[in-house]
Amino acid sequence: MRAGHYLAFSGGVGGAKLALGLSRSLAPEQLTIIANTGDDFQHFGLHISPDLDTLMYTLANVSNIEQGWGQQRETWNFLAAMESLGADTWFQLGDRDLATHVLRTQWLQSGRSLSEVTKQLCARLGVAANLLPMTDDPVRTWVCCTEETIPFQHYFVKRRSQPEVSGFQFRGIEQARPQPRFLECLNSANLKGVIICPSNPFVSVDPLLQLPGVRELLQASAAPIIAVSPLVGGRAIKGPLAKMMAELGMPVTATSVARHYRGLIDCFVVDEGDATLAGQIEDLGIQAAVTRTIMHSLEERVALAEFVIDLVSSLGGVNQ
Amino acid sequence: MRAGHYLAFSGGVGGAKLALGLSRSLAPEQLTIIANTGDDFQHFGLHISPDLDTLMYTLANVSNIEQGWGQQRETWNFLAAMESLGADTWFQLGDRDLATHVLRTQWLQSGRSLSEVTKQLCARLGVAANLLPMTDDPVRTWVCCTEETIPFQHYFVKRRSQPEVSGFQFRGIEQARPQPRFLECLNSANLKGVIICPSNPFVSVDPLLQLPGVRELLQASAAPIIAVSPLVGGRAIKGPLAKMMAELGMPVTATSVARHYRGLIDCFVVDEGDATLAGQIEDLGIQAAVTRTIMHSLEERVALAEFVIDLVSSLGGVNQ
Repeated sequence: MRAGHYLAFSGGVGGAKLALGLSRSLAPEQLTIIANTGDDFQHFGLHISPDLDTLMYTLANVSNIEQGWGQQRETWNFLAAMESLGADTWFQLGDRDLATHVLRTQWLQSGRSLSEVTKQLCARLGVAANLLPMTDDPVRTWVCCTEETIPFQHYFVKRRSQPEVSGFQFRGIEQARPQPRFLECLNSANLKGVIICPSNPFVSVDPLLQLPGVRELLQASAAPIIAVSPLVGGRAIKGPLAKMMAELGMPVTATSVARHYRGLIDCFVVDEGDATLAGQIEDLGIQAAVTRTIMHSLEERVALAEFVIDLVSSLGGVNQ
Repeated sequence: MRAGHYLAFSGGVGGAKLALGLSRSLAPEQLTIIANTGDDFQHFGLHISPDLDTLMYTLANVSNIEQGWGQQRETWNFLAAMESLGADTWFQLGDRDLATHVLRTQWLQSGRSLSEVTKQLCARLGVAANLLPMTDDPVRTWVCCTEETIPFQHYFVKRRSQPEVSGFQFRGIEQARPQPRFLECLNSANLKGVIICPSNPFVSVDPLLQLPGVRELLQASAAPIIAVSPLVGGRAIKGPLAKMMAELGMPVTATSVARHYRGLIDCFVVDEGDATLAGQIEDLGIQAAVTRTIMHSLEERVALAEFVIDLVSSLGGVNQ
C-alpha cells in the first residue's frame, strides 16, 4: 500500500480523466481532488459548477464520455420547453443534469457552503473520492478578448471560444480563501505529492494557483509537484487551449505549458509523441517524463495515474 | 357581439375547463380570469403556482387532460435524477413543466411581480386571455387536520388528501392586496358579470373572496354573480371536495356549496343530475339554474360558458 496523501488539481474533462485514474489507484483517504470553480456561473437563477459536475459525474461513472460533459442517457425536454418560452438556451442543461443544479442552488440558498453541497452530492452519487471546490468564495473567470471582456461561459459556450483572447481575470480571487481542507492538505507533513491534471493552465489551473497563499504553500512544501501536459503534438485533446496559446503569442507546444508552470513544478509529463521536447523542458529546470498521456479507456486513465504516482515516489519528498 | 367585461374566479383543473370555455366565447379584452394562489409553494427553491400553471397550460392547449395537471408529452428524468440524489419527490415535476417554475423563480427573484411573470409566461405560451394571480402578495393555504395543520400541498399531494380536515387558514391574507387590475375590474362600471368556476369553494375560491375588500366590492357591484357547482350528484368531478365536506359535517350536495356562497351569489348552476336540488337552492334566496356541467370535451366547455354568459344577460346588471 502506498503511503501519504496526494492532491490533484483539476478543471473539467481532461483533468477528470486523470482524477478518475488516481481515484482507482489510491485509497479514498489518500486523495483529495481540488476543482476549479472559476467557471462557475449563475444561469436561470441556478448555481452551475461545470468543473465540479464533470468531476462528480466522471467519478460516479455517470458522465457522458462522448460528449465530454453532462450525464449519460440524458434528455432535453426542459431545454426545449425553455426555448418555447423564449429563454436563452445557449447553455445546454439536460433534464437529469438539472437535478444537480436545482439541489445545489437550494442548498446554497439555505446557507450551506459549496464544499458542503459538493460533499453531499458526492455522497448521494456514490463518489468515495474527496472532491473539493478550490474555494467556497465566489471567483469568476472573465476572458479578455480583443473586443470586450466576457464571463468565461459566454466565451466558451455562448461564443464557442471564437473571440481572440488576450488575457484572463479571476474576479474575486484576492478576497477568496482557499477551501480550508485544501489549505490543511497543503500544510500537512503527510502530503506526498501534488498532481496538476492535464487541464487548461490558464482557465482551469491558474485560478487554483492564484488563490491567496496557495503558490507560497506549494513552493514551501517538500512534496513534489508534477504537471501532466494538456497538449499532445501541439494540439489540445479538448477545448480551446491551443487556440488561446496562439492568440497569446506562445508556441503551441507542451514546452510552453511547462514554461508557464516554471518555478512551481518539479516534473512535467509529456506524451510519447512529444518525447523530443524533453530537452527543452529540462532546459527550463524542470524534469521531463515521457509516457502515453492520451486516455481513451479507463485502463489508460489508471495507467497514467500509476505512472504519475510512481513519479512522485521517484522524485522523493518529505515522506520518502 | 356581447358587450361588457366578465370576471372568472378559478382554481385548478375544474375551474380551468370553464375558463377555457369562457375564453372561447368572449373576446380576450372581455374576460379576466383570477387565479387562486393560496396553493402556491416553494419546492426545491422554486416558486410553484399550481393553479396558475393549470390555467396557463389549459388556455395554451398544452395541458395533460388525462392527468389533470402538468403538460402534454411530458418526461420525468429530472425527477428520476432528484430521486437518485436522495431528494423528496412527492411533488411531481415534469421536465417541460420545470421550465415554467425555473423561469418564474428567476423572474420573481429579479424583482418582477407574480402578475408580470404570469403575463410574460402567458405571452410566450400564446395565451391571449387575461390571466391574473388573485394577489402579488404571498397567501398560503394551510389545512387544519385532526392531528396537525399542514401546508396545502402537503395535505393534497404528499398526504394524498388522507388527513381529516377541520378547517383552513389562508396565511398572509390580511396583509395581501388584491391584484390591482382585479380591483379595477371589480370597481368598473363595465363589469357585466362575475363567474365563480366549478372549483373547490374552500381552498380554491375562498382565498380570492377573503382578500381584503373583495367581498365588499362584489356585494356592492351591480353585476350578477354566478357560481357553477363543483359537485355533481354529491361527488366532486376531481379532488377532495366531497371528502372535505363530509369531514366538515356538511351534507355532500350542491346545496351545501350554494349555502356556502349565500349572501354573495345571485345564481347557482347545478348539473342536470342535481335538478331536484333547485328548490332547496331557491329556498336559500339564490336563483338556481340547471344545465349539463360535466365538461369532457371542448364543446362541452364552450356550451357551459355560453350558458353562463346567457345567464348573466338574463339576470341583468348595470349594463343591461
